[in-house]
Amino acid sequence: MVEASMESWRARVDAALAVALPSPDTSPQRLHAAMRHAVLLGGKRMRPMLVYATGALFDADAARLDGAAVAVELIHAYSLVHDDLPAMDDDALRRGQPTVHVAFDDATAILAGDALQSLAFQALSLAPVEPVVAVQLMRTLAEAAGAGGMCGGQALDLDATGAATTLTVADLERLHSLKTGALIRAAVRMGALVGGADEARLALLDRYAAALGLAFQVRDDILDVEGDSATLGKTPGKDAAQSKATFPGLLGMTEARARLDELGHAMTDALASFGERAAPLAALGEYAIRRAN
Amino acid sequence: MVEASMESWRARVDAALAVALPSPDTSPQRLHAAMRHAVLLGGKRMRPMLVYATGALFDADAARLDGAAVAVELIHAYSLVHDDLPAMDDDALRRGQPTVHVAFDDATAILAGDALQSLAFQALSLAPVEPVVAVQLMRTLAEAAGAGGMCGGQALDLDATGAATTLTVADLERLHSLKTGALIRAAVRMGALVGGADEARLALLDRYAAALGLAFQVRDDILDVEGDSATLGKTPGKDAAQSKATFPGLLGMTEARARLDELGHAMTDALASFGERAAPLAALGEYAIRRAN
Repeated sequence: MVEASMESWRARVDAALAVALPSPDTSPQRLHAAMRHAVLLGGKRMRPMLVYATGALFDADAARLDGAAVAVELIHAYSLVHDDLPAMDDDALRRGQPTVHVAFDDATAILAGDALQSLAFQALSLAPVEPVVAVQLMRTLAEAAGAGGMCGGQALDLDATGAATTLTVADLERLHSLKTGALIRAAVRMGALVGGADEARLALLDRYAAALGLAFQVRDDILDVEGDSATLGKTPGKDAAQSKATFPGLLGMTEARARLDELGHAMTDALASFGERAAPLAALGEYAIRRAN
Repeated sequence: MVEASMESWRARVDAALAVALPSPDTSPQRLHAAMRHAVLLGGKRMRPMLVYATGALFDADAARLDGAAVAVELIHAYSLVHDDLPAMDDDALRRGQPTVHVAFDDATAILAGDALQSLAFQALSLAPVEPVVAVQLMRTLAEAAGAGGMCGGQALDLDATGAATTLTVADLERLHSLKTGALIRAAVRMGALVGGADEARLALLDRYAAALGLAFQVRDDILDVEGDSATLGKTPGKDAAQSKATFPGLLGMTEARARLDELGHAMTDALASFGERAAPLAALGEYAIRRAN
């Protein structure tokens, strides 16, 4: 039942993304092809799933959630395109495919990322929701994507990479709460806003989302140490090679795993009052903690 | 009277931009400083002026126009930061100042541009206008900024730079109608939307804005041939050095100047029915045609 919902949401957002993206047959073809490469060649679609799964708590119609689901995935996709650039993390492989700047070129990758961000807000502006809700969605996504969220976290990450000073665990948690956490929280909040959640529910769901975002990153760090390229679809061992601070590096592997378990309990607690309907959100939390890629 | 309005609008948007941008004293400082460098070190503020001048046709309160004025300037500023990158136009000088990637570094310039785009949509989401108008503004700006507008025009420009095939005048007009025209039209449309313009007025104002955008670019090309670095605040002769198609290059200088005059007449015609109130828009049109930098 949960798996069927997940599968239908994944198919739904993939279809909506394919429609939202500009056609590879119209000019400028190279830009359009790069945008489609960035978005359509895979990805877990975790953020769109969070939008649908949270909206479902409130019986929100999936058609009203599509805009937020598409928008959050487009922001995520653009951030990967820019993060992979030579001037940033310099990654050649992503989801088992050449990254956009490798498959195209640096200039096209910069532009494709820029255009994907614009398209995200365009998608929100076209969503069939009340205008007052659309404005809330726009504000939520813009805050999460910008200097106070994802971009700010990436900037902290740049500052920390190869730096002589060592980050504390608190520093690292702040970095990730911005870099990956902000967008995950925005996905949950947008689903809840479309569903008409009250402040109390928004707060509970934000506790769930904050724990989820951190768990996702702790697991990512563990996988970077343990994983292999074939399973990950990207190059493992990058963090160590770039002297990046990681949770296993700061806490040790045993403690990092214990932190993951704690975060799992925090998610379970935050979802308790929603009952059976929260099963998909609980499953996404489990996935974040157990995933192998 | 027109000049007093212009001065007050410039001061108004500069103040609003300074408030909208994140503080250089809060973390991540380097990102915030780069964003402020990109926006606050000058610029003509032509697009915000267009928002205010168009809104004034309809007696729109300036406070209701600030969000659109700030947002369109932030999009313009981010596009310059990314266009100046080594992977794009590779420019070291802008408005007489080092470009962001020179003053900071490439990674910070990419991120600062990204965060400025997010901040533009955040500014729209905070504007004190009816939600239905805010959604129209968001859609207008997102469409103008993305693959169907500014980013698409920049992609066409990249495709054309150094290419063996020569662009026609029609190709060049399309390129610029996207690269610079789309955002100028969006500025005018946003001012008109806040003012509650009907479809007939929106159409007239769009004719004005389309002519203005093209005139601005024709003048830019002429200045690139004739200008000097001190007056321009940027490096002249770049277009020829990069084998870029230009209006003087395709039409000859005499014909390019004649085209500017035609565009001036088109603007005058489009504004005729608005009477004296359109004096600031007319002055901005004159400026686009006569400017020396």
